[in-house]
Amino acid sequence: MVISTKPPSGMRDFLPDDLARRNHVVAVVRDVYERYGFVPLETPAVENVEILLGKYGEDEKLIYRILHRGEELQRVIASGTELDADALSDQALRYDLTVPLARVVAQYGDLPKYFKRYQIQPVWRADRPGKGRFREFYQCDVDITGTESLVAEAEVCAAACDVLDRLGFTGYRLCINHRKLLRGLIRAAGIDVALEGSALQAVDKLDKIGRDGVIAELVARGVADASASRLLTLLDRPADETDDARLEAIATALVDDGGRAAIDQLGDLLRLLATTSAGARARFTPALARGLGYYTGPIFEVQVDDLAGSLAGGGRYDELVGMFGKRKVPAVGLSLGLERILVVMTERAMYPELATGPEIMLCWLDVELAAVLDVAKRLRSAGLRVEVFPEAAKLGRQLQYADSPGVKATWCGILGTDELARGELTLKRLATGEQTSVAIGDVLARVRA
Amino acid sequence: MVISTKPPSGMRDFLPDDLARRNHVVAVVRDVYERYGFVPLETPAVENVEILLGKYGEDEKLIYRILHRGEELQRVIASGTELDADALSDQALRYDLTVPLARVVAQYGDLPKYFKRYQIQPVWRADRPGKGRFREFYQCDVDITGTESLVAEAEVCAAACDVLDRLGFTGYRLCINHRKLLRGLIRAAGIDVALEGSALQAVDKLDKIGRDGVIAELVARGVADASASRLLTLLDRPADETDDARLEAIATALVDDGGRAAIDQLGDLLRLLATTSAGARARFTPALARGLGYYTGPIFEVQVDDLAGSLAGGGRYDELVGMFGKRKVPAVGLSLGLERILVVMTERAMYPELATGPEIMLCWLDVELAAVLDVAKRLRSAGLRVEVFPEAAKLGRQLQYADSPGVKATWCGILGTDELARGELTLKRLATGEQTSVAIGDVLARVRA
Repeated sequence: MVISTKPPSGMRDFLPDDLARRNHVVAVVRDVYERYGFVPLETPAVENVEILLGKYGEDEKLIYRILHRGEELQRVIASGTELDADALSDQALRYDLTVPLARVVAQYGDLPKYFKRYQIQPVWRADRPGKGRFREFYQCDVDITGTESLVAEAEVCAAACDVLDRLGFTGYRLCINHRKLLRGLIRAAGIDVALEGSALQAVDKLDKIGRDGVIAELVARGVADASASRLLTLLDRPADETDDARLEAIATALVDDGGRAAIDQLGDLLRLLATTSAGARARFTPALARGLGYYTGPIFEVQVDDLAGSLAGGGRYDELVGMFGKRKVPAVGLSLGLERILVVMTERAMYPELATGPEIMLCWLDVELAAVLDVAKRLRSAGLRVEVFPEAAKLGRQLQYADSPGVKATWCGILGTDELARGELTLKRLATGEQTSVAIGDVLARVRA
Repeated sequence: MVISTKPPSGMRDFLPDDLARRNHVVAVVRDVYERYGFVPLETPAVENVEILLGKYGEDEKLIYRILHRGEELQRVIASGTELDADALSDQALRYDLTVPLARVVAQYGDLPKYFKRYQIQPVWRADRPGKGRFREFYQCDVDITGTESLVAEAEVCAAACDVLDRLGFTGYRLCINHRKLLRGLIRAAGIDVALEGSALQAVDKLDKIGRDGVIAELVARGVADASASRLLTLLDRPADETDDARLEAIATALVDDGGRAAIDQLGDLLRLLATTSAGARARFTPALARGLGYYTGPIFEVQVDDLAGSLAGGGRYDELVGMFGKRKVPAVGLSLGLERILVVMTERAMYPELATGPEIMLCWLDVELAAVLDVAKRLRSAGLRVEVFPEAAKLGRQLQYADSPGVKATWCGILGTDELARGELTLKRLATGEQTSVAIGDVLARVRA
């Protein structure tokens, strides 16, 4: 049997160059999150299945489930119970980072009241693979639990914008809306509250199918023609309208207190954001719906031109984090789409020059290997990334290898009997071919110059 | 139903303090590995099951297997085939980092000939959990493929010792032996080659059950009494014997060329190591057997007193990495036992002071929140880790929170109307209570002083 050596469908091997790019982005994310006072959390890849079930609606079928081990599997098969995923499996792979956070908050009583955690780990979804859609992918989540203060919203939005700014993104938008304002607008348009969820799914497509498309879809979902038009007039605003004008125009149309409170909160949030790095990016966007049903307050999403989907998204969800415990735990979260950020940065060539592989390849001729390792040791102690050509070979072959695509050493350090006697290296820059003799102790300064 | 919020049995949540320690160790491992010219590789948590099957012998039952998804599961159940793990599962969780490396080497034709990769990722084994034994745990592997040169052995051993030195370990031993020397000694002792594997399992227990215990076990495994004694005389050497004397004494007893070649290689390796950081640690240890059957050349293990098991282990395995491809790929690998290193470092209090959480908690009174966020922004731009107390509260409560165990801010920055008017913070060191007024622009220097 010929065995395929590809990774499983929808999953990826990350080779050194991939990791250089990924680690560059993750290092910026970590650094920014930590400056905002977030602390790291990591949870197991595997969760007991009852932690995950009932949390993802329709998408539950995308959960990777783990088969019972050993005797338990035999027992289940022999027991005569009807066999299905629930009978055959007791554990599953993490599907997102929010449910594990809720479990952790319930489990550890000594966490700070305002728990500000970031978590950067892979999740697994048995989704149909596609361009930029994987079955194993990383999420970079940041959440603040325990407070209803808008500081939480402002901080996660500002952190996300700091990350994007540091990575070199320009011209992105932080779209802001409020779950309870959407509800208020649906009421103001005269739409039956029972149709709210369905109506929001149609609204969520405004970017893709346009105003007339959304109206048609609303009507197909049972909304009266006039109500659909009225809703779109409220949601789909003139591009040149200021946020203040927009808030005011919409406020006058509202008929419920919840909607009016949402308008007030949005005004406060936009004023708070104005002093942060998110200020210049924030835009009140009444048509922003976001798919997830669990949001209860402000919602936000980072969009860039020519990318379907968003670079980041989040919002307030006060009913979710407390689900495993006895008390309600208000929370605000934001998830950076690492895979999307990487795709856009690659397309736009936004990466700085990233160091991968050795800075120097030590090539040697007619000297003892022990002497070569001794030089390597001294260069490494100084902080250099050093590879030693491992076999006796002609110098030309060694230099050719050092310059080959997978290795890409910047310098070769040539060590022969002469160099060794003088305590020097012949340092050759591979890109230009220039070479000079340098004392071992001066190599770092020369290479890093 | 009450749902347990513990992580699955044998798996762990890593809270911020845990991660500070883990990240400290991993950062040192990465830095040292990169100085040795190793490049990073990451592979998916999930592998197609045919990649893993047949690789781990008896332990294959410890592999976590993933249930078929969706219709495929229904099809299998309805098909009437006998249901077992093989029928119900097509994928599985990574069991080690060596088999994925072999898959990657076969899959990507453009890897460098001497592929020096490190990989630091979790693996999963459905083993019985116990002290220091987990079902999800990290491995830190370093491998050099493509060369039969002893430089490979010397480099991985030196890298491991550099890691341990940098972490503050002292008094550890790098035990060195050779798989083919063990075979030669078994022949020299007059033991049937068919008993080799079984005999090595007995020898591997010398540390635990002593000389007489091993002899008894060898006899129980079918080795003649005299041969067992003869083998132990060869393996169990006087403590004060030098490596050179040991090599010579054993060489004279050998009856086969393979064993003599192994002695020569060990001598060469010890001479190479002498110039590296591993030199002072290395010790020729003829009784070192290591459990894994796949080694073909030198083997090594790092041991410390009062720890059963090892901190690192590895060796040459020339038949394994090529298993998915058409050509033989010689390889040397070493795995650092991250979990064991963490356990020993905790027991011996070897961690430096590790920064977790915010350096400054901004506490505020009678000022606009926007002004507080503005100060936070300026401090973060300077590089400080800053948390903002999120709610309006009495100053005492804010200070108390900042000093609480889960938060542990070092400083509070108090911001009231006076401070704001002067562009200053009242900086209070929580441990001592001392407080001074500092201009916002001078806070970094003061806090990091």
